[in-house]
Amino acid sequence: MTLPRDYTGQSCSLARSLEVVGERWTLLIVRDAFYGVRRFGDFAAHLSVPRAVLTDRLANLVEAGVLARVPGAGRREVYELTPKGVSLWPVVRALTSWGDEHYATAGPRRIFRHAADDAPLTPDGRCTRCDTAVEVRDTLVTPGPGLGTGDGDDDVVSLALRRPHRLLQPLRD
Amino acid sequence: MTLPRDYTGQSCSLARSLEVVGERWTLLIVRDAFYGVRRFGDFAAHLSVPRAVLTDRLANLVEAGVLARVPGAGRREVYELTPKGVSLWPVVRALTSWGDEHYATAGPRRIFRHAADDAPLTPDGRCTRCDTAVEVRDTLVTPGPGLGTGDGDDDVVSLALRRPHRLLQPLRD
Repeated sequence: MTLPRDYTGQSCSLARSLEVVGERWTLLIVRDAFYGVRRFGDFAAHLSVPRAVLTDRLANLVEAGVLARVPGAGRREVYELTPKGVSLWPVVRALTSWGDEHYATAGPRRIFRHAADDAPLTPDGRCTRCDTAVEVRDTLVTPGPGLGTGDGDDDVVSLALRRPHRLLQPLRD
Repeated sequence: MTLPRDYTGQSCSLARSLEVVGERWTLLIVRDAFYGVRRFGDFAAHLSVPRAVLTDRLANLVEAGVLARVPGAGRREVYELTPKGVSLWPVVRALTSWGDEHYATAGPRRIFRHAADDAPLTPDGRCTRCDTAVEVRDTLVTPGPGLGTGDGDDDVVSLALRRPHRLLQPLRD
């Protein structure tokens, strides 16, 4: 078949975005990067994604300029969101809010709060107390009522996120 | 492999959302529904999606309660966004804005405006003139500088969207 019109050069921005992040694992990897996950092994353990798939998706995200490989502790290379990657936050937040609204029967697993006053954010990212449009770096991810305590999430990322954590702050070097 | 932790019952809302809309065509179909596309043939022509794929994705969206089959003109059955589907607008808007920011070298193909005062919306959906958080139904999709005139988009949807159009208003019965 011919290439869909919406995938040609000057094409629809939604289509172009989906070429980069329109795949299930990709946005989960990006979300984890917002949570401060940097190590290949931590992404793999937290997402239980097959390592070959993770390798492929990370390479695509680096190629697209969403993630960058940077030096980590010792000789380790880790992944960090670029500014282009950070600008995906409204997408991650909007998809998470939609899922919370329609699928979080036990309440949200994670609640995003304004670090300045600890108030939860609205679905469009404004502080419910001071009405600021909260920057990614001023956002805390905190445990919500839907976060089971016995659901077997004992990987280092899940354990770290049982306490409030500031977005983009590395969970470890 | 065992099911990823994030795909279990009370799982992360982003993961659950991606199970429903985490596939390229799916969100393009949803976007077209916001633009007022209702007929199978119009989705197929506008997206150039293989009919078998479209049939499958539409069935999934109906199954998920994002789209509903409703009676159209004559004996035709058409698709409409449910309230659950309409609540995906911030996701479509955020992904489109991200693509506009990073890939729309000729400027956006579509500009979203507040129907009340015709002012463009911010990436987070507020009116740049009156600062209202604009409802989906009060949003116009209008042609932008990146919308080529000679790019061969001569299907009924592309032609209709060369004029301002209110979101959710059917392009035809």
